[in-house]
This record gives sequence, structure tokens and C-alpha cells, in this order.
Amino acid sequence: MGKKLKSLLIGNAIRSTDSESEKYSVLWGLPILSSDAISSVAYACEEILIVLLPVLGTASYGPLMRIAGAIIGLLLILTFSYRQTIDCYPHGGGSYSVASDNLGKVPGLVAAASLSIDYVMTVAVSVTSGTAAITSAFPELLPYHVQITLACIALLTLGNLRGIRESSHLFGVPTYLFIVSILVMIVIGLVKALIFHQVPQVNPGVVQTQAETVSVFLVLHAFSSGCTALTGVEAVSNGVPNFRKPSQKHAKSVLSLLALLVLLIFGGVCALAALYHVPHKANITVVAQIAINIFGQNSVMFFVIQFTTALILIMAANTAFADLPMLLSLLAKDGFVARGFASRGARLSFSGGIILLFIVSSVLVVVFRGDTHLLIPLYSVGVFISFTLSQGGMFKRWVTRKEGKWRHKALINGLGAVTTAVTCIIVAANKFFDGAWLVLILIPLLVILMLHIRRHYDRVRDDLSIPENGSEMVLSRPTENYIVLPVQSINKSFVKALNYAMTLGGVIEIYHISTDNARTEHLKEQYQELHVDFPLVIEEAPYRNVNEVLLRHVDRRQKELQEHQMLTVVLPQFVIKNWWHNALHNQTSLRLKSHMIRMRNVAVITIPYIIQE
Amino acid sequence: MGKKLKSLLIGNAIRSTDSESEKYSVLWGLPILSSDAISSVAYACEEILIVLLPVLGTASYGPLMRIAGAIIGLLLILTFSYRQTIDCYPHGGGSYSVASDNLGKVPGLVAAASLSIDYVMTVAVSVTSGTAAITSAFPELLPYHVQITLACIALLTLGNLRGIRESSHLFGVPTYLFIVSILVMIVIGLVKALIFHQVPQVNPGVVQTQAETVSVFLVLHAFSSGCTALTGVEAVSNGVPNFRKPSQKHAKSVLSLLALLVLLIFGGVCALAALYHVPHKANITVVAQIAINIFGQNSVMFFVIQFTTALILIMAANTAFADLPMLLSLLAKDGFVARGFASRGARLSFSGGIILLFIVSSVLVVVFRGDTHLLIPLYSVGVFISFTLSQGGMFKRWVTRKEGKWRHKALINGLGAVTTAVTCIIVAANKFFDGAWLVLILIPLLVILMLHIRRHYDRVRDDLSIPENGSEMVLSRPTENYIVLPVQSINKSFVKALNYAMTLGGVIEIYHISTDNARTEHLKEQYQELHVDFPLVIEEAPYRNVNEVLLRHVDRRQKELQEHQMLTVVLPQFVIKNWWHNALHNQTSLRLKSHMIRMRNVAVITIPYIIQE
Repeated sequence: MGKKLKSLLIGNAIRSTDSESEKYSVLWGLPILSSDAISSVAYACEEILIVLLPVLGTASYGPLMRIAGAIIGLLLILTFSYRQTIDCYPHGGGSYSVASDNLGKVPGLVAAASLSIDYVMTVAVSVTSGTAAITSAFPELLPYHVQITLACIALLTLGNLRGIRESSHLFGVPTYLFIVSILVMIVIGLVKALIFHQVPQVNPGVVQTQAETVSVFLVLHAFSSGCTALTGVEAVSNGVPNFRKPSQKHAKSVLSLLALLVLLIFGGVCALAALYHVPHKANITVVAQIAINIFGQNSVMFFVIQFTTALILIMAANTAFADLPMLLSLLAKDGFVARGFASRGARLSFSGGIILLFIVSSVLVVVFRGDTHLLIPLYSVGVFISFTLSQGGMFKRWVTRKEGKWRHKALINGLGAVTTAVTCIIVAANKFFDGAWLVLILIPLLVILMLHIRRHYDRVRDDLSIPENGSEMVLSRPTENYIVLPVQSINKSFVKALNYAMTLGGVIEIYHISTDNARTEHLKEQYQELHVDFPLVIEEAPYRNVNEVLLRHVDRRQKELQEHQMLTVVLPQFVIKNWWHNALHNQTSLRLKSHMIRMRNVAVITIPYIIQE
Repeated sequence: MGKKLKSLLIGNAIRSTDSESEKYSVLWGLPILSSDAISSVAYACEEILIVLLPVLGTASYGPLMRIAGAIIGLLLILTFSYRQTIDCYPHGGGSYSVASDNLGKVPGLVAAASLSIDYVMTVAVSVTSGTAAITSAFPELLPYHVQITLACIALLTLGNLRGIRESSHLFGVPTYLFIVSILVMIVIGLVKALIFHQVPQVNPGVVQTQAETVSVFLVLHAFSSGCTALTGVEAVSNGVPNFRKPSQKHAKSVLSLLALLVLLIFGGVCALAALYHVPHKANITVVAQIAINIFGQNSVMFFVIQFTTALILIMAANTAFADLPMLLSLLAKDGFVARGFASRGARLSFSGGIILLFIVSSVLVVVFRGDTHLLIPLYSVGVFISFTLSQGGMFKRWVTRKEGKWRHKALINGLGAVTTAVTCIIVAANKFFDGAWLVLILIPLLVILMLHIRRHYDRVRDDLSIPENGSEMVLSRPTENYIVLPVQSINKSFVKALNYAMTLGGVIEIYHISTDNARTEHLKEQYQELHVDFPLVIEEAPYRNVNEVLLRHVDRRQKELQEHQMLTVVLPQFVIKNWWHNALHNQTSLRLKSHMIRMRNVAVITIPYIIQE
């Protein structure tokens, strides 16, 4: 039944050999890997204006355009840099791979840890703000906003468990809806403003402040706020192996398209905000105000823009769902996280990572009661740390290898490294006391944990691996078995176990623990009637703790073993088909086994006897 | 650590041979087994007045005394009857034993079911009303009354798990406090009233109604309400084996003392209520009003009476804790409930029954939100059913066996049976629609369940038991072992398992499930280097469901077995000492085993390999 439910929810299993058809095309890869970056334009422009407007008032729009230009410049540098990364890393060139390959293990893990934290935050923040968009449209849903957020995360989880192809179709459509409607708005808005000059000269919402000198600090603060527009660019280069062949070419196309879209949408929204002199209002977003200015308060297009914005915010989480499991699978292959994350589930998705992301982000949403203001400061420091490490890694690669046009390429990646490093410092400094400090503590803790896990795997591998002269080990087999067969009553189950024990060829000891003299006497008589001549060892359990006494006995016998002797405990166990009848029987053999297995040189055999019912 | 906590909470284990010292003396047995009966006087008199006062007003006190007389008469009949039962059943003569011995299996189970329901109710109702007494003294505790009730039940549970002797000391003192203080009140009250005539002529709280004719229905209703005073009389005869030797003599002494105390206290309280013309008030009990009348509103004695009343109500639950586990142990020995209830815990108490009572009564308290009014109608029908069956059983015993003064004894038990049967009908009829119907449905359901359990145990026993020519079975041992050794990678753990498998003497098959061609090729090479010549069987798992494929393979091999062949699956398992490191390994062998064990003729061997850390 559990199996049926599973295939109903996530579909039937897919064969490993069918994996090629489960990969991204450019058309469906773009929305999945770009939704995070594209969704950020829904608030990046606003984040800049929040910083500028209270200080500069009507004089804000000039600096706004210059800051937007800087961010777009940074985007272009990153795009060129990452195109080079994709060329060099056909198996996925996320920051983790690039940094660990060129800078070493620890920088690689720092990049991985930063990016993982950021992806978890992406899911929590974007789904929470998508829900906030829904509840501001339908205030009667407000009391249930945590539940709605969790339901959305669960839906995304299920979609991603269904596999790459289905999730890209499921979640690609809303992203395209958003892209198309916002591009339409930008074109119409620009035409209206630049050709027909239909713009308000002075917006009453904007304060008329004295034209101050624009301070460096203010610009940097606004810049760091706007940098959220750049999160998600990383995803494409990490996801190269998920593209259809030729993977690298497809990935580079998607990356270029992504950059183009961010440029158009982010630049367009900023330009419209400047042209229409949009103020910052607490209860209505900048994008919504632009839509009202262009289409009117109750127009269909205004509602389309609002609706698709809510959708894209939720979809942004999808980039994390596509990318974090990939990253975890790479870490798992290298032994830095549990190996389970490296294996694909029934639908070829990395189900372990998807489920982990579901759990952690849901916990975050519940702990923070679905409040974005508490989560946002933790966001986007991580992504700039990983950008810097990735670009730095590429720079070092060119400088070290000196292959091809290395000077030119090193320049691009070096520029990327410097600008992202500077941005990272600006962002971390601006957000430090609001919560970024927590991320800066978490990253080293995660790195230490991953190193610890790797050390554990190494130790296990070293312990298990067979030395060069391996074939000789097979000859070192135990010469003799010492067999302990516990018995509490003489019945068919015991006789079956005894029969089996006799085939094992070793010394057999029948072992009984007495808690009741009358029962023990009866057992002795019954045993004699079997006419077998193995010794019946009887031990008293004055405190009725049968299991403890048995374990002590096995431990004692085990310690008496000779070299190359093995102790075998044969446990008769009767099996009842009807599960609830098991409650009527004191079946301790599973529990016993998990204790005995911790003793060296003890083999535990379970001999089932199936009860006819 | 779990063990330390256990011994801290319930004390160190007690040897089975020390059981005699753990039994009741008369002094400490009395409070445990009588607290239920004695506590009921705290409300039995009031229950009668609630029925009478609204109809008869000042004319109530005459009928009150007559009804109290009838109940005391019934008590005396029961006492004499149960003394006879104790004589006949030295190993415990609860209704279950007596009814099943003389009337047959089903009447015995009906008695057991009725009594079990009543004991659970006793715990829920009495602790809830004890808590109500506490919260009416300290109203600020009212919001926590459910938690307080649960804490009291938990405390009683712990005390009883500590064993008979300690619980009787722990819980005996409050009972004696109540007995002494209430007897002091009765003596002083009677002296004041009868010798000094210090009684109010007409109490302003009592309505002056027209003297009606007293209807039969009214009297029966009041009688059935007062009959709660008789619950708990059963406990002594059930608990005979818990008394020190001579058990029967001690039990009979306790029973007589119990009857005497109920007679004195119940009779005394009713007499005082009549003499002082106590009215029924919603927020102050009859006993409290008597105490105010005698000692004054703010006197020390008033508070002592109130405090000890609250205590005795909670202690009343203790009779159930002493007796229900006894009853369950008898049922378990006869195979009508899970065998586990028959075994004594570390402190020689029947811990299974105590914990079950704790769970069920706690659930009841939580479900009914600690409201006694919803629980009381379910109460006391059961006890009269079991009284009737017990007395009927004794009557039949005398009439059938005709031993000694059987006519005289049959008369007493027959009288007991008839009066309790009539009382039972009265009680059930009066409470039917308030909830007694639920009990009358539950009893047959429990009986059916117990019969089902017995049938299951019988079937298991029949299936397991060895036929007369038992010794021949031992010769029917498997002639050959077919051994399957699954391998996912060639390492020391596998080699150890292989070495062990080779000692077993049978056909060995090395079985590998392939999910990755490269890994499988590598494994083949490694296997060849071992220079062993067992066949390496390789199966593909295109859907990566390794466990399912393995189980299917084992099942297939098992079905191919010849007569007297046995399939042995050898599972290498590496063991990691540090528990949390286990999360890093995909250890499925325990899960696999629980599936394989359901296949006939499959033995599962676990070969541990302990990782050095």
C-alpha cells in the first residue's frame, strides 16, 4: 500500500538507462535554473529604493539607475566568468568543484557550505514571500499563512521528487508567464513614457528633500541591497550534467539567456521606476505601482502582473530544489556528507537531498513563524562567498596552467573574483548585525562537520579494504564453531533450530535461563525425551532479566574463544503472519541481535518458524 | 543511563526469592485495599441526598437513614460472602476466578471485563475528583487541572512500580490520616448532637416541601446512587496471594476491618447529615458542611478534614493499581490477555498491568478533559455485574459440591447473589442513558477480544508442540545448506562473511546486484583476485531498488529448495560503535532480515565486522 501511494504521488520508477530523456532542454531548463535570479527583480529594485528614497527623495532616481548599471555590470562579468567555468567543468562546475579543484579541500567546502545555507534560505524566504503576496490579496487566509507556506514547499518537494523532466514542465510554465507579462509591461511602459511622455512630473508620494551630496556609504548600502538580483546565477554551471547533450553548449545558452532576461527585466523595472518617479509604500510593491501607473488600478494586466509575481516568488525556490541536491550528490561522492545523498531515487532525482531541503526549510518556516524580515538578513552573504571562491579558483587555474588564451581568461575571472569579493564584504558588513553573523558562524561549523564525516569514511574504508595479499585472508577461516542455542521451552521452533545447528558442524551448547523452578524442571524432562546428547547449561536469573543474562553469557563465551574460533548464537524465532498478534508474544530476538552484533566474533542466526493461522 | 534512571525512579531490582518480604501485612494491606471503598463515603452520602432533597426537602433525612441501612446491610452480606470465597480460593478469589471456576469460561470473562472497566474508571474518576478538591481550595490551579490529574496518576504509577511493600507504605499513611480524622469528627459530632443537643432545628438551606408519599422509584434511585460506597470490596479477595502467610487469615481480617470501617464511616456520616439537617450545596460537600457545623468555618479540624478527603480520593485509585494488575496476571496465565502481563517486573510488581492502567486512565482523563460528570455514569455498573457473578458462582459451588455446612453457606452467597443482581439492575437502569449503555457494549467486546487472544495462543501452542514421537523430529535435519552471500563490494567484512559461510558446509552462491556497470566490473576483478571458485551471480537492478531485488531472489531460491534443504542467507554487516555515525551508512540488513524471516526455510546469519574508530 505504501508502494502504491508512492507511485501515485511521484509516479512509477524510471529505469537507470532512461536517464538521458530525463534531462533539461534549453526551453525547460531555463525557467528552472533562472527562476531564482528572475524572481529577485520583483524586489531588487525596491530594495535599492528603500535605501535611497528616505535620504535623497526626488533625487534618488539618478543614483538608482547608476547602481542598477553597476549590478548589471557585475552580472555581465559573472556571466562571462561562468561561461568559462562551464567550458572547463563538463561534469558540473559549481563553486564547490571549482574551488576544491583549484584552491584546495577547505575552500571548496567553504563554498559548498555557504551555497547550501543560501539555498535553504532561498526556499524559506521565497516561498514565504510568495505566500505573503497571496495573503495580501486574500486577507482571510492570513491566519493560515504558515500552513500555506508549508503546503507550497511540500508541493515543490513532490514535483521535484517526480523527476527533473516533470518538475521542469510543472514549474516552467509560471516562470514563462511572469517573464512574458513583465516584458510586455516594460515595453508598453517605456513606449508610453519615452514616446508619448505620459508620465507624472512629480509623484506626490516622494519627499522633496534638499539635494544632498550622495554619500559613498549610502550608495554601497543600496548596492548591497540590490545584489539579491544576482543570487541564482551559480545554478546553471552547477547543473551542467543535467542538460541534454551537448550539455556544455546547452548550459552556456541557458546562462546567456538568463543574463539577458535579468538585464532586461531588472534594468527595465529600474528604468520605469525612475521614469514614473515611483515612491516606496509599505503595502504595495514597486512593480505593482508601476503596473497601476501603466495599466490602471483595476485593469486585467495589473492583476496578471500581481498573480504571476506571487507565482514566480514561489517558483524561485525551485532553483534551490534543482541545485542543492546536485551539490549534495557531489559532496556525497567525495564522502563529505552521508553517501545516501549520492544515489538517485525511483524517479532518478536525488531524493535524499530534496527531502532534506524540504525538512530543513519547513523547520525554518515554522521556527520563524513564516516571517521574512527575520530570514532575509541571513540571505545572500553565502552566495557571494561562493561566487568569490569560484571566480578565484578559475583565476588560479588560468594562472597556473597557462593554457590557450589564459591571460584574457584570467583577466575576466580575476575581475569577477575581485568584484564579487568586494561585494561580499559590502553585503556582509551591511547585514552583519542583522543576522549575517549567524551565517559566518554556521559556515565553519558545517565545514568541520563535513571534514569529520570524510575522516569517518576514510577510516571505515581503510579498515575494510583488503591488503595486497588479499587471497590469503580467505584461508584464515575459523576452524571451529562454538554454537549457543538458547531455549525457553521445548517446541517445534526449538527443534527446527536444533536441527539447523546440528548441520553447522561445531560444538553445540543448549542454554536455558531459569526464572521459575517448576518450568525448568519440566523443560529438563522434555529435553531428555528428545534423546540428544548436547549439554544443557542452566543459569538462574534471580532478577528475571532474561535478556541481560543471555547477553552476559554470550559475551563470556565469546571471550573464551580460541584464535580462529567463532561463536554462533542460533535464535529460534517464530513468525506470525498477522502483525497485531505479534503484540501477544514477547519477541526479543531482534533486540537481542542488535546487541550481540556489537560483539566481535559472534555470528547470529535466526531460524524462523512460521505459525500456521 | 536508561537503567540508572529506572533504578532511581523505581528502585533496584528485587530477587524473585525475596518475594515473601514484599507482601502485605494486615496493617499496610488494609489502607491499600480499602482506600477505594472508604473514599466512597466522601460522596456516597451526598449522592443519596442529591436525589432525595429536591423532592422531599426536610423529610429526606428519614429515608436517608433507611437507605444507608440497606446499603450497610448489603455490605454485611457481601462481607460474609467474600469471607467464604477467601476460604475456598487461597490463590485469589476474585470474581474472575470464582465465576470461571463455577459458572464457566464466558461468565468468568464477563466478570473480568466488567471489573477491568470499573478499575480503569476508578482511577480516572477518583484522581479527577481529588484534583477537583485541590483546585477548589486553590482556584489559581484550575487551568492546570488536567496536568495535575495526570501528574497524580503518574505518581501513583511510579509508587506501584516500586513494588507492593513500598507502595503500601507510601500510600497507606494518607488513608489512615483520613480514617482517624473522620472518625474523630463522627464521635465529636455524635456527642455534640446526642448528648449536648447542639444541633440547628431547621437548616435554612433545606427546602420546606409538602410531605409527599415517598415513591419506590425515588428510593431505588437514591439507593443506586449510594451504592458507589460498595465498590472496592472485591479487591481483598482478589489479592489473597499478596498477603503474608497465613494469607487467607490475614485477608479475612482485612476484609472484616474494611467492612467495619465502611459501616462506621458511611453510617456515621449519614447519621450526622441527618442530625445536622445538612442541605446540598453546589460548591461545598456534605462532609465539609458537617465539619463546619461541628468545628466551625476556620477551625484546624475543618482544614484537616478537607485535606485528607482530597488525599483519600486520589488514594482510592490505588486499589485499582493494586488489583487490576493482579487480575490481568491471572488472565494472562490463562492466555486471555497478552502473556507479558503475567510476568513480574524488576521490583516484583506486575509492571505491565500497572503501565497499561496508567496509559488507559491517562487517555480517559485527557479525552474527557478531566470532567468527572462525564465519567461517573460509566462507573459502578461493572462492579455489580462482577459481584453478582462471583456470588452466583459461590452459590453454585455449594449447591453442586454439598461439602460441610453447604446449606448455610449457600444461603449467604445466594442472598449475596440475589441482592447484588437486583442492585445491578437498579444501577444499570438508572444510569443506562447517561452512559452505562457504553459499558454494556464494551463488556461483550472485551470478552470477544479475550476469547480471540486465547484462540490465538491455543493455535500457536498446538502448532509448536512436539508430537508424542518427538525424538524422531531431531533426525529430520536438513541434509544440505544452500547459502546465498550478497556482496556489494569486496572488503574485509565480506571476506569475514565468506570465511564463515565456508565453514557451514553447503553450496555457496555469491550474489551481486548491479546498479552501476563500472562498479560491477571492478567488483568482478576484485573477486577474481580472491581465488575462490564459488559462482558469482550478478543481477541487474534497473530501478535501483536493491533490497526488493534481493528479497525476490531469496524468495525464488527458497522455492527451488528440495525437501529437507535449507536456504541460508549470510549477511555481512559492519558495526560502528559511535551511534550517530550509523546515519552515514545505509544499513539495511536489519530491515532485510525482518522480511526474510517471513519466508519458510530461510535462515539468516549476520556476520558482524566491527569498525575500529
